[in-house]
Amino acid sequence: MSSMKKTTSNEMWGGRFAARPDAIMEAINASIDVDRRLYAEDIAGSIAHSAMLADRGVISAEDAAEIKTGLETIRGEIEAGTFNFSTSLEDIHMNVEARLAELIGPAAGRLHTARSRNDQVAVDFRLHVKAACFAVVEALDAFTAALLDRAEEHAATVMPGFTHLQVAQPVTFGHHCLAYVEMAARDRSRCLDAISRMDESPLGSAALAGTGFPIDRHATAKALGFREPTRNSLDAVADRDFALEFLSLAAICATHLSRLAEELVIWSTPQFGFIRLSDAFSTGSSIMPQKRNPDAAELVRAKPGRINGALISLLTVMKGLPLTYSKDMQEDKAQVFDAIDSLLLAIRASTGMVKDLTVNEAAMRRAAGHGYSTATDLADWLVREAGLPFREAHHVTGRAVKLAEDRGVALDALSLADLQAINPAITDGVYAVLSVDASVASRTSYGGTAPDNVREQIRLWRERIAQRSAAG
Amino acid sequence: MSSMKKTTSNEMWGGRFAARPDAIMEAINASIDVDRRLYAEDIAGSIAHSAMLADRGVISAEDAAEIKTGLETIRGEIEAGTFNFSTSLEDIHMNVEARLAELIGPAAGRLHTARSRNDQVAVDFRLHVKAACFAVVEALDAFTAALLDRAEEHAATVMPGFTHLQVAQPVTFGHHCLAYVEMAARDRSRCLDAISRMDESPLGSAALAGTGFPIDRHATAKALGFREPTRNSLDAVADRDFALEFLSLAAICATHLSRLAEELVIWSTPQFGFIRLSDAFSTGSSIMPQKRNPDAAELVRAKPGRINGALISLLTVMKGLPLTYSKDMQEDKAQVFDAIDSLLLAIRASTGMVKDLTVNEAAMRRAAGHGYSTATDLADWLVREAGLPFREAHHVTGRAVKLAEDRGVALDALSLADLQAINPAITDGVYAVLSVDASVASRTSYGGTAPDNVREQIRLWRERIAQRSAAG
Amino acid sequence: MSSMKKTTSNEMWGGRFAARPDAIMEAINASIDVDRRLYAEDIAGSIAHSAMLADRGVISAEDAAEIKTGLETIRGEIEAGTFNFSTSLEDIHMNVEARLAELIGPAAGRLHTARSRNDQVAVDFRLHVKAACFAVVEALDAFTAALLDRAEEHAATVMPGFTHLQVAQPVTFGHHCLAYVEMAARDRSRCLDAISRMDESPLGSAALAGTGFPIDRHATAKALGFREPTRNSLDAVADRDFALEFLSLAAICATHLSRLAEELVIWSTPQFGFIRLSDAFSTGSSIMPQKRNPDAAELVRAKPGRINGALISLLTVMKGLPLTYSKDMQEDKAQVFDAIDSLLLAIRASTGMVKDLTVNEAAMRRAAGHGYSTATDLADWLVREAGLPFREAHHVTGRAVKLAEDRGVALDALSLADLQAINPAITDGVYAVLSVDASVASRTSYGGTAPDNVREQIRLWRERIAQRSAAG
Amino acid sequence: MSSMKKTTSNEMWGGRFAARPDAIMEAINASIDVDRRLYAEDIAGSIAHSAMLADRGVISAEDAAEIKTGLETIRGEIEAGTFNFSTSLEDIHMNVEARLAELIGPAAGRLHTARSRNDQVAVDFRLHVKAACFAVVEALDAFTAALLDRAEEHAATVMPGFTHLQVAQPVTFGHHCLAYVEMAARDRSRCLDAISRMDESPLGSAALAGTGFPIDRHATAKALGFREPTRNSLDAVADRDFALEFLSLAAICATHLSRLAEELVIWSTPQFGFIRLSDAFSTGSSIMPQKRNPDAAELVRAKPGRINGALISLLTVMKGLPLTYSKDMQEDKAQVFDAIDSLLLAIRASTGMVKDLTVNEAAMRRAAGHGYSTATDLADWLVREAGLPFREAHHVTGRAVKLAEDRGVALDALSLADLQAINPAITDGVYAVLSVDASVASRTSYGGTAPDNVREQIRLWRERIAQRSAAG
Repeated sequence: MSSMKKTTSNEMWGGRFAARPDAIMEAINASIDVDRRLYAEDIAGSIAHSAMLADRGVISAEDAAEIKTGLETIRGEIEAGTFNFSTSLEDIHMNVEARLAELIGPAAGRLHTARSRNDQVAVDFRLHVKAACFAVVEALDAFTAALLDRAEEHAATVMPGFTHLQVAQPVTFGHHCLAYVEMAARDRSRCLDAISRMDESPLGSAALAGTGFPIDRHATAKALGFREPTRNSLDAVADRDFALEFLSLAAICATHLSRLAEELVIWSTPQFGFIRLSDAFSTGSSIMPQKRNPDAAELVRAKPGRINGALISLLTVMKGLPLTYSKDMQEDKAQVFDAIDSLLLAIRASTGMVKDLTVNEAAMRRAAGHGYSTATDLADWLVREAGLPFREAHHVTGRAVKLAEDRGVALDALSLADLQAINPAITDGVYAVLSVDASVASRTSYGGTAPDNVREQIRLWRERIAQRSAAG
Repeated sequence: MSSMKKTTSNEMWGGRFAARPDAIMEAINASIDVDRRLYAEDIAGSIAHSAMLADRGVISAEDAAEIKTGLETIRGEIEAGTFNFSTSLEDIHMNVEARLAELIGPAAGRLHTARSRNDQVAVDFRLHVKAACFAVVEALDAFTAALLDRAEEHAATVMPGFTHLQVAQPVTFGHHCLAYVEMAARDRSRCLDAISRMDESPLGSAALAGTGFPIDRHATAKALGFREPTRNSLDAVADRDFALEFLSLAAICATHLSRLAEELVIWSTPQFGFIRLSDAFSTGSSIMPQKRNPDAAELVRAKPGRINGALISLLTVMKGLPLTYSKDMQEDKAQVFDAIDSLLLAIRASTGMVKDLTVNEAAMRRAAGHGYSTATDLADWLVREAGLPFREAHHVTGRAVKLAEDRGVALDALSLADLQAINPAITDGVYAVLSVDASVASRTSYGGTAPDNVREQIRLWRERIAQRSAAG
Repeated sequence: MSSMKKTTSNEMWGGRFAARPDAIMEAINASIDVDRRLYAEDIAGSIAHSAMLADRGVISAEDAAEIKTGLETIRGEIEAGTFNFSTSLEDIHMNVEARLAELIGPAAGRLHTARSRNDQVAVDFRLHVKAACFAVVEALDAFTAALLDRAEEHAATVMPGFTHLQVAQPVTFGHHCLAYVEMAARDRSRCLDAISRMDESPLGSAALAGTGFPIDRHATAKALGFREPTRNSLDAVADRDFALEFLSLAAICATHLSRLAEELVIWSTPQFGFIRLSDAFSTGSSIMPQKRNPDAAELVRAKPGRINGALISLLTVMKGLPLTYSKDMQEDKAQVFDAIDSLLLAIRASTGMVKDLTVNEAAMRRAAGHGYSTATDLADWLVREAGLPFREAHHVTGRAVKLAEDRGVALDALSLADLQAINPAITDGVYAVLSVDASVASRTSYGGTAPDNVREQIRLWRERIAQRSAAG
Repeated sequence: MSSMKKTTSNEMWGGRFAARPDAIMEAINASIDVDRRLYAEDIAGSIAHSAMLADRGVISAEDAAEIKTGLETIRGEIEAGTFNFSTSLEDIHMNVEARLAELIGPAAGRLHTARSRNDQVAVDFRLHVKAACFAVVEALDAFTAALLDRAEEHAATVMPGFTHLQVAQPVTFGHHCLAYVEMAARDRSRCLDAISRMDESPLGSAALAGTGFPIDRHATAKALGFREPTRNSLDAVADRDFALEFLSLAAICATHLSRLAEELVIWSTPQFGFIRLSDAFSTGSSIMPQKRNPDAAELVRAKPGRINGALISLLTVMKGLPLTYSKDMQEDKAQVFDAIDSLLLAIRASTGMVKDLTVNEAAMRRAAGHGYSTATDLADWLVREAGLPFREAHHVTGRAVKLAEDRGVALDALSLADLQAINPAITDGVYAVLSVDASVASRTSYGGTAPDNVREQIRLWRERIAQRSAAG
């Protein structure tokens, strides 16, 4: 398609460079395999820029129109898969511009007036990361909706609450789902804050110092959907905070998902048997036909590895770089693109698993009673009803648990005589607090696991979501 | 001071544990050397909790008063350095509670009613990180003030603007300072967002499920300066987002400072000679008496290493942890405390260096003219005045630079004949744009480096800061 | 003890510095709180250096003797806790030298001949890391011994082998222990390789260029236990590979331990119940008296967070540092010291847990039969006895498992008729391979889990260890 | 080409799975876009395995022959670009096996006897990483050769030796080059150690427990070029140490290269002007025609970001994974492949730059005299000739430097009277040590920068390299 194949980037610099780039140089320098993903943003930025140049009289309206038509043709070619990307043209900007020159001739050469690849890549990349943030918000909303549905269904489903992966106290599965709703809400909020902070257009900062052409940066900012232009041209081309902040929030979000994933892996062992993942999110084994492997959960659990790695990569690259643009910064995009894809996949796979999994309520309830999980309820009863200081009640309970453990029975299988031998203040009333249902129902403190609390929190979340939609 | 020295934490669990912890277990398990830093928050949390318990009738007013007096005594002892911290009591919570029992007897045992170490450490740590965020905001404000002062002083001081550490175009030192003002403003804004997100009290979430005691979590939240209590007890004890978000913003902020630090190191070489760091921020050599080493700048440059490491540490620890609390999370504090100290030191050392450094204006101006830094001005002139498409103007300029380079002269030392031999459209007027002052003055686009722009941005920043203070 | 308290490091540089360091500078610059840990190595290095200087006639024998006595006094003071460390003297080198001047007067000033703090800190730090590597080897040997003992005891104890945390095929606990022996052997081997690579003395490289004094670097290398001196003075003071390589191997070793730790956490849940950790390595709960928390295992699991963080810290600090020494490198020690302590604690705590844990053989055996774990044996039988291609045998087995699953029975509870309905080639002989013991015993391929294999591997390991001791 | 397109991996598990995988599941689960890179290793492994199966009588010689022919056809198709990779077939193993079934029918189903994808991917990936290590060794050898050539050429070329990027003492450029030879030698040695440790074949470990088929793992190990088979089947499929160790050594090696790259960036500024990178390793600017940007050096400097990120990714993924294989481990390859490519590019680009760069000897020599770089020589003279203790000599020198600095002259421009006013012991002889050539020539201590030392080290390196080749 393109006759430019033999043009190299050194030739683009004009006649000053005598030698062609070394083959290794071309290999290490070219970014087109990565940054071609920015084609739509690059073309949108160029159309906005040339339209503004025409409005300000810097180029003619005819040239702007030709540029626009040419760029739209290129967008079509890329989307149709007929565009011929060239490594020797280094990057998406040069590939597009070279093709534009083929399509419309000299007018193409006017497009780069009053800008530079430095502000061009900054605006392309910001647009892309901003769109990714919105996609993350949307994916988190679907995840939250799935969690709220399961929480509602299981507001009163008793399961063990764990600390140290040991059964601690009974809780409800609905309450557990809402814990992830809280995490997703913080992730969403971090996303919105990041969007707001990156919502400034660097276009028109030119190479680094601004320009003497009478450009209107507020106009291009508006055309591209930014709140406003950046205020300092040096910072505008040197800054990758928007990418670092995205990677940070992605790492935290992926960490949340990995915690759920670990639970799904553990819960779907035959030993726990709390849940069964659907066929759609499991795989078999090439040699062990009986296996039902929680692959999706394991892959979600692994994603923080990838995203933390991307975060460290870019932090390492940016550390100690003098202003303004240095070529090191070209390493920003591969990492961020990979993190975007990884995060979206992880949120969506988590959403799918949450929607599809089958809860084994009987197994959860059975486990909730294991391990003397209502011991705290006994201790609290001793404080409330027998007036013991908590520390003393704790010690009394410890002795009761030891006795039950030695006998291999549950706490409520100890006789009143046994309990009174440990502490004479214990009465028959104590048995009322030793069941898992009584325990769960009693935890009515704000944020506690009592089913009515859980339902109230679901109601409040649905209200907040409705308000967002109304506002949105 | 304390007679509890021989009590071990296993004894604290009551009689159920037969054996004492292994010495290695004690060594790996104890956190008191690290978390003693939380003593003030721990005591504040306990006072708020016991006051609330008394208000709600869970404990008596007398007990609450005794507890308060005892805790205040302990705070005094710690601050006076007379408190006897014990490793066998594991952590700050146990150390304080054991001492309280010595001081006030059985009433101490009532303090732990309706709470757990899980919510206790969560509230202590949040309070500490929140305070650290405010300290970072304050330090950034001082840094910004120092930068604005230098920017004002040097709004028109011409220096080279660099890309790839090559001289690109002339800019002003004031404009360069303002780039860091932009970064600091984003850092500040990230800090405020993080504070807002962490401004919820986990206290009263108890071990993980909430409690059946009629506690008032809104009251303790208010007493401790939080906006509101957390909404889900499982999330409240399992969450360390506030720490991860702090570490993320700290890593980004430290990255900014490392860029300035790298510039200071390079600029204070004899080869550049743009600045001279004050004695107060330099050191000598034990063997080379002539050295004036930019140690403070180098140490600031290194701080991202430390903070990125802390970020990765905590992300790694939290990855894949099933809810709710796991002991792994004890590894959170050493990293965060180190990052807090590193970041505050780095901001303050940067502020000191910015304030104290001497600018060598002559050296900056001389360097600004190197390397054909006004070549873009020539290209722009060809577009503007001779109507060339930018790409063609770029090529013409490339030929002019090559000629000048071959002759070893500056661009404006080429004769008009020479220039016209390259492109006949060039006229005498071109010489007006080839000086560094003309170049800088011409960049009047929004965000550009023209001195008037710089002064206007300084004015706007001062206005914003005044509004903050008025609002604060 | 010391009257040097008011001397600052700037004063150490001689009269050229007019101003005292800023308070922030002193805070960011001082490393004494961290590098005091190197006191023994610093003193040993200085003694070796001054003895060599005397041998070469650079200083007098009397001065060398005085220096040695003075340094030994200082070592005694530090070990007795009576040495007065001063922050204004920055680091361990200056603290020791200043005290030496107090003790022996002018001769102290001859110690620093023909060396610099650059080679001094390099030699101190190398000695320390080398000693740490030997300590790691020793700790790994104890860990290996504990694993071999448990492996021997349980060479034939059947347990489930897991993939994806799903029961895959039966294995033996002894075989599982030997997997960790393999990992520890690789860790040990990496340690020895690292020791060999760092076994070169930088002492005498002076500031960076070597020296004109007629020193004997081979002599000091030998005196300090190094194989030889480094070959390039610039590299010698700029290099921190030994620290990076230690951190790398520590990260990999800690990763191994974290895998075992995760298994211990999961296995000690009531749901798995495979093991019970001893009291010595468990803790209780402040609010839930029944809890037996695997804290030591969780802390071991968390250690890679800390060590990976340290590794990233130092890699980040060293990245892009021009030769030779830069002050950034001062950030090397805190991270490495923390990693040394973390790794040694993790290995030792793992050793303690392996030694002390109680194996519940019945629970392991019961679980080994879950989930159709001998399905592969059925498939292999079909290949071997009925001549089916493996893929077809796999599909036949899949149908058998599905039938058993639908009926809720084990594979060997299906009747021959049922099996023949799926594939007519199946005969009565198949039942012989469907038990977990038969399965385990059949896996006699090299490296397989058959108990005789396990015992043979234990024998070989013990032989190798005996050879090491004989060689050592 | 393939009619298998509609087969999904779930169908491969046999009839037990009712539902097809979810689209998101397929997206997150498929690894074929990454692991297709392992096709040659996968095919080699399968050929070795089937040949061994035939030798041991497990399959017929005819089947083995057919399998071999089929696999070679597939290799041809892949290399010709005509192979139709299918995402629904998940990975390279399934893609090859499905195509083999098309080509040779039922015999294909016999290939997977006595193995599993778990040992298959382990052997493929090890073979690939081992080959990468050898490629790194080869690239390092070329890098070393280039450095030795430049070192020889510039054994006596005086340049400033830097600490803190301040001129410290004169050294030679040859000596500086040799510092990188030392680093490359350590990198090479780490590579060889890693190769030796990974030189064990996991093939035949099957899913995790070994197999009952009478396989010969020593034979397949030998056929694939491994020293021996692994000794424990669980470890063999769970282990990724070889990848982690490669990433560690790659990170350290890339760190070395980044240090050189930073120096090249700084040295090619007009301010330093020590070197000029060739056109083949520089680029121009799209807007600033005069720019000669050191892009290759900047990209090399950035590579540690990428490789450190990959290292952290895999460490994070492997942390806390219970034995044996978990799907998380699928995330290993993308990171390692990227690190292999990044490291090889970085070494080769560094080699190219070292070979091509032009040294400006005059600029180096001029700079070597800056900043009182022979002050240490004065101090050493005072010790040697005037008998001052070093510390006192240091102070005297400090005063001389201050005087020269105040007067704005070099040290050797101070008159003897001036010097004697500072210390009366100074004689005329001192001027002999104050030139940069005298300084460099005097540093004859082992490892020092004296040109004769440099030449001797070059000779020794060439000797070692010749011995390697003779041995190789």
